[in-house]
Amino acid sequence: MPTLILVRHGQSEWNLQNRFTGWWDVDLTDKGVSEAKAAGALLKERGVLPTICFTSVQTRAIRTAHLALLEAGRVWIPVTRDWHLNERHYGGLTGLDKQETRDRHGDEQVHIWRRSFDTPPPPIEPGSQYDPANDVRYEGIDVPSAESLKMTIERVLPYWEAEILPVLASGETVVISAHGNSLRALVKHLSDISDEDITGLEIPTGQPIIYEFDDRMQPGEMRYLKDI
Amino acid sequence: MPTLILVRHGQSEWNLQNRFTGWWDVDLTDKGVSEAKAAGALLKERGVLPTICFTSVQTRAIRTAHLALLEAGRVWIPVTRDWHLNERHYGGLTGLDKQETRDRHGDEQVHIWRRSFDTPPPPIEPGSQYDPANDVRYEGIDVPSAESLKMTIERVLPYWEAEILPVLASGETVVISAHGNSLRALVKHLSDISDEDITGLEIPTGQPIIYEFDDRMQPGEMRYLKDI
Repeated sequence: MPTLILVRHGQSEWNLQNRFTGWWDVDLTDKGVSEAKAAGALLKERGVLPTICFTSVQTRAIRTAHLALLEAGRVWIPVTRDWHLNERHYGGLTGLDKQETRDRHGDEQVHIWRRSFDTPPPPIEPGSQYDPANDVRYEGIDVPSAESLKMTIERVLPYWEAEILPVLASGETVVISAHGNSLRALVKHLSDISDEDITGLEIPTGQPIIYEFDDRMQPGEMRYLKDI
Repeated sequence: MPTLILVRHGQSEWNLQNRFTGWWDVDLTDKGVSEAKAAGALLKERGVLPTICFTSVQTRAIRTAHLALLEAGRVWIPVTRDWHLNERHYGGLTGLDKQETRDRHGDEQVHIWRRSFDTPPPPIEPGSQYDPANDVRYEGIDVPSAESLKMTIERVLPYWEAEILPVLASGETVVISAHGNSLRALVKHLSDISDEDITGLEIPTGQPIIYEFDDRMQPGEMRYLKDI
């Protein structure tokens, strides 16, 4: 049975500092490293062993994949990194402290930017040190200047359909190591969650989520591996 | 100018225990981890930044690549893992303590197995716990039962020609993280070293080796990055 495993990266340096991260490339904290290893240990313990891996091009997701696969004894499987699995781009909020942003723009406005389905935050300022357009890993890519959750979904799902679903359908056990919002995009699609409900759905860090697919490639219920 | 970087993995658990390792999958020691990070730090310091990576399917080489790329700020580049870059298969010697092997078979015989160009060690015993034929990562691969250095070269070079050289020729900066003997195969070819001389050439662990290629894809001198 084709099996999909979703893992949200563990705690990052900016999660800890409570700053908007988006496409900025921060590393995991020690706690994040532990979360990634625990995810891999659980995969091994339950015998859910990935045969192929997809990640974003962001260090925190790549490192989570690496640490989890190492712990699961699967560090040798093929890994594809692609920006389509990146976190939502937080535009002009990137790098800002969340409390400072609330103080400046008001709770309500920040809530809208964080939790609205289709309102993007303000665009990143050209020349900002946090602008990924200056990052060599995005050379040749039409980097967005800010994304709503809707815009994030609109780049995650075509990649899912074109690159991941066919691999899954061929019988692989696929693990995707990614981010809160790129995983929301997949869960919304696979579990048919409404635009309203998806913005409130929290994907826990380092907790493998499992979808099993039937022979018509229809996904079953979303389940946490720890509960199976 | 197309640039090739070769890195031999850092100290492994069985290097430390002085056992024949070959295709057995051991992890790095703490010293091996430090060596890998130092290799990455040197790449960053000298501005020799890989754009694509090749490794074997063995944990010690994959982890060396990961740690070095993380340190160099390049963990997001594409990585291909392939068994053709594996260490030489030590056959029936796999898992044996090198001193015990000398005591049992004599210094001269062990020297021949280790340093002869074309004499393979005895084949691994069927059913041995160290037989990689039982390892799921080699499913569908015609796993050898033992390899001489010559046999190792005969599977490394076709892979180099078919998969790595064209990528290098396209202008990428390629890093290969691999093993003493798979790297000997490449160095023998690139630096035109004789069958006699190559068996005595020691590739140091964690020391990036650089080859620059001219516009006819002819390699220059082998140089250690630390000396450039």
